[in-house]
Amino acid sequence: MSPEQINRRFLLRRRPSGDFDPSVLELVREPLPSPGPDQALVRVKYLSLDPSNRIWMGEGESYIPPVPLDGVMRGAGIGQVVASNNRKFPVGSKVIGLLGWQDYALIGTGEEFPSQRLPALLPVPLPSLLGAMGFTGMTAYFGMLDIGRPRRGETVVVSAAGAVGSIAGQIAKIRGARVVGIAGSREKCEWLLRELGFDAAVNRRDPDWRAQLASACPNGVDVDFENVGGEIMEAVFELLNHHARVVLCGMIAGYGEDGTARGPRNFSILLMRRIRLQSLIVLDYQRRFTLAGMHLAWWMRRGKLKDQQTVVQGLERAPAALVGMFKGENTGKLLVELG
Amino acid sequence: MSPEQINRRFLLRRRPSGDFDPSVLELVREPLPSPGPDQALVRVKYLSLDPSNRIWMGEGESYIPPVPLDGVMRGAGIGQVVASNNRKFPVGSKVIGLLGWQDYALIGTGEEFPSQRLPALLPVPLPSLLGAMGFTGMTAYFGMLDIGRPRRGETVVVSAAGAVGSIAGQIAKIRGARVVGIAGSREKCEWLLRELGFDAAVNRRDPDWRAQLASACPNGVDVDFENVGGEIMEAVFELLNHHARVVLCGMIAGYGEDGTARGPRNFSILLMRRIRLQSLIVLDYQRRFTLAGMHLAWWMRRGKLKDQQTVVQGLERAPAALVGMFKGENTGKLLVELG
Repeated sequence: MSPEQINRRFLLRRRPSGDFDPSVLELVREPLPSPGPDQALVRVKYLSLDPSNRIWMGEGESYIPPVPLDGVMRGAGIGQVVASNNRKFPVGSKVIGLLGWQDYALIGTGEEFPSQRLPALLPVPLPSLLGAMGFTGMTAYFGMLDIGRPRRGETVVVSAAGAVGSIAGQIAKIRGARVVGIAGSREKCEWLLRELGFDAAVNRRDPDWRAQLASACPNGVDVDFENVGGEIMEAVFELLNHHARVVLCGMIAGYGEDGTARGPRNFSILLMRRIRLQSLIVLDYQRRFTLAGMHLAWWMRRGKLKDQQTVVQGLERAPAALVGMFKGENTGKLLVELG
Repeated sequence: MSPEQINRRFLLRRRPSGDFDPSVLELVREPLPSPGPDQALVRVKYLSLDPSNRIWMGEGESYIPPVPLDGVMRGAGIGQVVASNNRKFPVGSKVIGLLGWQDYALIGTGEEFPSQRLPALLPVPLPSLLGAMGFTGMTAYFGMLDIGRPRRGETVVVSAAGAVGSIAGQIAKIRGARVVGIAGSREKCEWLLRELGFDAAVNRRDPDWRAQLASACPNGVDVDFENVGGEIMEAVFELLNHHARVVLCGMIAGYGEDGTARGPRNFSILLMRRIRLQSLIVLDYQRRFTLAGMHLAWWMRRGKLKDQQTVVQGLERAPAALVGMFKGENTGKLLVELG
């Protein structure tokens, strides 16, 4: 078979325990499938790597079922239709959906979440549809504006100012808040300060990160956009002002175990300081994506919202890239570009 | 000095560590004070005993400062003015406020929270002003209606269906919800079912209380009115439906320690099930007390809201009564009536 007739796919062979372990995935080569009735075959162009990939591998509680064993690894992606029996997805059209970690995906029937056709003329580059204009940006948008609701002059802390967090922080800046980011390296802190206009950035690998965080928030914290959990969340909780809001967006520090994460030791702060804590799953907001997308595109066009991506080349490098993401090696949104 | 010239007062001599220990309080006899300029002297008639008494004794974080050492124990009460240099509080008028654990209180100046004069004609008996029509009822009202927001047919769990919880559950019933109470004895469960019309009641001292709770909530839990924390909160969290609301009203299971309470082991349920968790301190709602009071009084008059009290006779019995409250010995609101 020529390379064009091969579909490389990452199958989930085991469930990881603890941190993500690339050996749970096996790269297999299968013959290129033909689209069945009402199906279309999509050549995957970009894959989005996200903390939720790890959640989906495990059997811990999640908002969607785990990837079945020996099934293709789940992942959001963008691709182009190369063969079609479905009039909604003509050859050449671009689609977005949970295309999976593979060179080619069948869409149109049998999908967990139906893929969607993209308009022919796009206002932003394709990768941004997986980043600031995609689920990543939508999560930041609804989390910050619907739940966090920062007011002018309030202090917003974004833990793990990565893909979602960097967008969330910029939206808080647009709303006039003072924004403090927590990141995993000096380089990322510089990026938050210089490129994205954050007011302060704390490197969580510095021994004195707690003191840095406290001094970066002299007026306390009004909004905690929480992506991390664990001791970082506990440190932010200590600084929460009365009536503060916690946007519980992710708990990357807790995904390593059985999919559950213990509560903070200082949970009673939530009681004593009249806190509102709320989680979100971006799929709940789909009916409002259009308007949110217009806002996000407008901000990007005006230069108020920057969409940074780290793009890794080649499907085969996806597992190593995901390992790197949990180590904080990428800046902004992490994507894989397929050959 | 004749008894009329003596003011018995409980002073806080030490801070308790762990559970409330009555020996931290000392009953002293002091001469009856005379009201200074703009002050009035109040004969205390009823004292409200609440879990927050224990919080106020410690130096753990709270929404108001701890009782100072050697200061009179803080407590809400109702009394009658017996001497006055303040025209707002004429002799004979009834007042409500943080009168403290003592026979007589000076009000009008120097109070942490200003006492208020009650109208001459009251629509409910005096004790109800510390119960269903007081902070207790207001906490239940705003917690259930502003934060919990149960819809018709939804399932509401009230942990520790005591003073606040029993009112909260009845309000949820008025709103058309299915209400499940958790209480500490079979008698209290019977009371919840027969007197208050709860749909189910779980005795947390039964070995199979978790199974009872699960079978009492066949459609999951939409509102957790949380008064307890600890393993009871964890058990309710397991049953939470997606988009459920947690009213974080109290964590009586955690007050025994240093005033902080650890988070639940299954905290990540809050993330995965799109939960909104919010705490309340009833003092934040003071501007809306009038309207809430009208609602509560209307429901009481129509027999839809029952205000059960356990009334202990004699100031000297207040510490033992508070010990009993933490053991769950009282039913409904616990009051001390002074001789």
